[in-house]
Amino acid sequence: MNIRLVLNFLGKLFLIEAALMLPALGVSIAYGQGDAIAFLMAIVTIAVVSLPLIFFFRSKDQQMYAREGLAVAGLGWLLMSLLGGLPLVYSGSCSFVDAFFEITSGLTTTGATIMVDIESLPNGILFWRSFTHWIGGMGVLVFTTAILPSIGGRGAHLARAESPGPTFSKLTPKLGDTAKVLYLIYFALTVVETVALLLAGLSLYDAVIHAFGTAGTGGFSNRALSVGAYNNLAVEIIIAVFMFLFGVNFAVFFKLILRDFKGAFKSQELKTYTAITVVSILLLSLSLISHYGDFLTSLRYAMFQVPTIMSTTGYATTDFNLWPSFPKMLLLLLMLFGACAGSTAGGLKMTRLVMLFKMARREIGRAFQPRKVSVVKLDGKTVPEETLSQVAILFFCHISLIIFGSLVVSLEGVTLTTAFTTSLTCLSNVGPGLEIVGPMGSFAGYSAATKVFLSILMLAGRLELYPILILFSRAAWRRG
Amino acid sequence: MNIRLVLNFLGKLFLIEAALMLPALGVSIAYGQGDAIAFLMAIVTIAVVSLPLIFFFRSKDQQMYAREGLAVAGLGWLLMSLLGGLPLVYSGSCSFVDAFFEITSGLTTTGATIMVDIESLPNGILFWRSFTHWIGGMGVLVFTTAILPSIGGRGAHLARAESPGPTFSKLTPKLGDTAKVLYLIYFALTVVETVALLLAGLSLYDAVIHAFGTAGTGGFSNRALSVGAYNNLAVEIIIAVFMFLFGVNFAVFFKLILRDFKGAFKSQELKTYTAITVVSILLLSLSLISHYGDFLTSLRYAMFQVPTIMSTTGYATTDFNLWPSFPKMLLLLLMLFGACAGSTAGGLKMTRLVMLFKMARREIGRAFQPRKVSVVKLDGKTVPEETLSQVAILFFCHISLIIFGSLVVSLEGVTLTTAFTTSLTCLSNVGPGLEIVGPMGSFAGYSAATKVFLSILMLAGRLELYPILILFSRAAWRRG
Repeated sequence: MNIRLVLNFLGKLFLIEAALMLPALGVSIAYGQGDAIAFLMAIVTIAVVSLPLIFFFRSKDQQMYAREGLAVAGLGWLLMSLLGGLPLVYSGSCSFVDAFFEITSGLTTTGATIMVDIESLPNGILFWRSFTHWIGGMGVLVFTTAILPSIGGRGAHLARAESPGPTFSKLTPKLGDTAKVLYLIYFALTVVETVALLLAGLSLYDAVIHAFGTAGTGGFSNRALSVGAYNNLAVEIIIAVFMFLFGVNFAVFFKLILRDFKGAFKSQELKTYTAITVVSILLLSLSLISHYGDFLTSLRYAMFQVPTIMSTTGYATTDFNLWPSFPKMLLLLLMLFGACAGSTAGGLKMTRLVMLFKMARREIGRAFQPRKVSVVKLDGKTVPEETLSQVAILFFCHISLIIFGSLVVSLEGVTLTTAFTTSLTCLSNVGPGLEIVGPMGSFAGYSAATKVFLSILMLAGRLELYPILILFSRAAWRRG
Repeated sequence: MNIRLVLNFLGKLFLIEAALMLPALGVSIAYGQGDAIAFLMAIVTIAVVSLPLIFFFRSKDQQMYAREGLAVAGLGWLLMSLLGGLPLVYSGSCSFVDAFFEITSGLTTTGATIMVDIESLPNGILFWRSFTHWIGGMGVLVFTTAILPSIGGRGAHLARAESPGPTFSKLTPKLGDTAKVLYLIYFALTVVETVALLLAGLSLYDAVIHAFGTAGTGGFSNRALSVGAYNNLAVEIIIAVFMFLFGVNFAVFFKLILRDFKGAFKSQELKTYTAITVVSILLLSLSLISHYGDFLTSLRYAMFQVPTIMSTTGYATTDFNLWPSFPKMLLLLLMLFGACAGSTAGGLKMTRLVMLFKMARREIGRAFQPRKVSVVKLDGKTVPEETLSQVAILFFCHISLIIFGSLVVSLEGVTLTTAFTTSLTCLSNVGPGLEIVGPMGSFAGYSAATKVFLSILMLAGRLELYPILILFSRAAWRRG
């Protein structure tokens, strides 16, 4: 491990984070609620930490191998969450551990919160909190492809660690070009959503906050009742549609821009994602009639709650914790796989679900035709056996971490359902679970140790496990 | 599919089942509680069903391919469960669907029960119910290897369907010989346990019933409070030890008989199984101190509950449903993997857990040393990539079925914990779950449709999914 190179790189990342605090500082000054000083102090602290890293750790060997790339990804997200929490600590909004949890939740676009009285917080702090979703979402999409190539062609390995599956590699030959297009799509969609929410009646501040939360598929709201607080059907429809869109593989939008409509819509992942969304909304609407009394009301809540869970955003228009068993179980199932790869969503991703089902079908076929050789195809192309094997093992690791997380959380003495949904929602970067961590609940009641554990779980989910698992692996730290 | 051959074969299996009812008939006559007539009627019914199958469906092509083998395995267990329920129906003990559920639970060695007042049933019926565990356990171990070779060398494919993983193939060249040795081990262990239970103070009847339940890792008891009814430490220790032993891969006993002690104890599966048992007992004992007040009492309950769950037997000496969250979550985790392959236990099996962990470790290693080629070894031998891939996909199918089962059961309006543990305990062939299906509970409250669904889940778990999934596959039924 070339530790000098890793530290130098981390220093640069921290400085970028400090720069990203400037908009929030602006909001603080504009509202004048006394939190501007907290942002200034945070920016100074980060500068004090990062400048020595940049100047004292220079490596002659500038080549970044997979090991270094994974370490930067893992440590980078972890430490940026730590430093990103400073404004919350300095402004007295919460404790250090709580701030770490909250900003990890922000940067991993999870949206789980330890805040219990959100509406009492200063607007600058709430802006920063939601802005971390937008940064995190961009991080997943382009951070690594937009910034790294400009430092010298080392982006490939980091991209491997953070982008799920084979997606953009063939769209443009240079990572930097792809990154710019992705950045534009992400930015444009966020602006369109903000304008739409303004037109639907939200204030500029509320519109921006919720557009950030949607774009990053995060879910932080500045309202205690989340999107339900507005009781505005137009707002609900706009956010639902954009949550669905931000769960789509951005390669699809890319192809649309290139006017490759055929290519865009033949994606099996997109078809599966759309089909599961529609079927789930229908199933949910039908199973909620007994709860809400009529189909249209059921449909209104189902049409919002399905995309919020599938895109792993986590906004809510109702306390689905009060729903009957079947619709709750369905939501938990949707949390596991999330939305499409190459989007800002968390979870295992639709493309992996498609591959796993195709592998299972092949295995069943093999059982009664043992000699037949068959390959798994996706969008007409054969998927390499090594990729299939990786997907199946990632599934095992994901489930193992959910189970392990449930065990750890159960030590808090909460019910099995609370423990399990806490672990699931953190690893899948959704945000809300059920019972005390339900959509109207909070993670505030957990001990500091559990909060740190859950933060690591969120990071592991966001980075698709390996970069985080590797930080705990002895082999990775051996040898120079 | 050679349907004539399949039907002929099923007819023979049914006749064997009728013959296996004779001991229960003997018990009925001995106790004279009026249920002997029910057994006679059942035997006649089975003869009427099976004799035409045997005489009218003769196939010129006696070759059994994988397809036919899997169909016989799937349909055989399904229909034998249906016919095996006849004595319960004829004696008025329960409805037809309930009898199907109960005997499926028996033959799959699950031990989930729909009975609510067990102690009021006639002794003959209770004997038959427990005897199906013993038959089922033998079925898993040797049914297919003992009976089929004598009909003409078609055992291999059936064995592939029912025996989990690569186990006995290299112990003896002929399936029939292996089968006889396994049968002897199974029989001898059952007799030793019966004698031990007699010496510990149980009546012959109770000793035999519980030896059957232990040997098959089933869990039916003739007492409403299960093994807890005796409140006898010696009985608890004997049953705990034998549950552990019946969860060991029988290849280990086989090697011990051949005096290959080195080979027997170097098995990584055995080491993992023993280590997980010991660690779980310790963790459970410690986490139950607050519940029971002192370590020794905790240890007494932990020392029984861990092997009962890991071996997927399902006896209980306490209502673990009343335990705190952590120990309950731990038991659920243990249910998933069960005990060793090549034993009578259910679940995914320890050997698969070992392989999955090794695959995950390899994948993590690959992430930072992408060019390194590495294989997964088990007991010093390289495991073929195809086997690894099958194991990973079986894990996906198993988890998918647990989730699907939870969704279906949640339609009953039970809590999420009840729905999930019902699905898990049925698929893993354990028996008890939590809450209403807890160790002192019953599956009686579910609708007939759910009971049939759960029966199929038990069969799918017992036959390691594929034979049952194939019955629902169109491709398997195509072509002659």
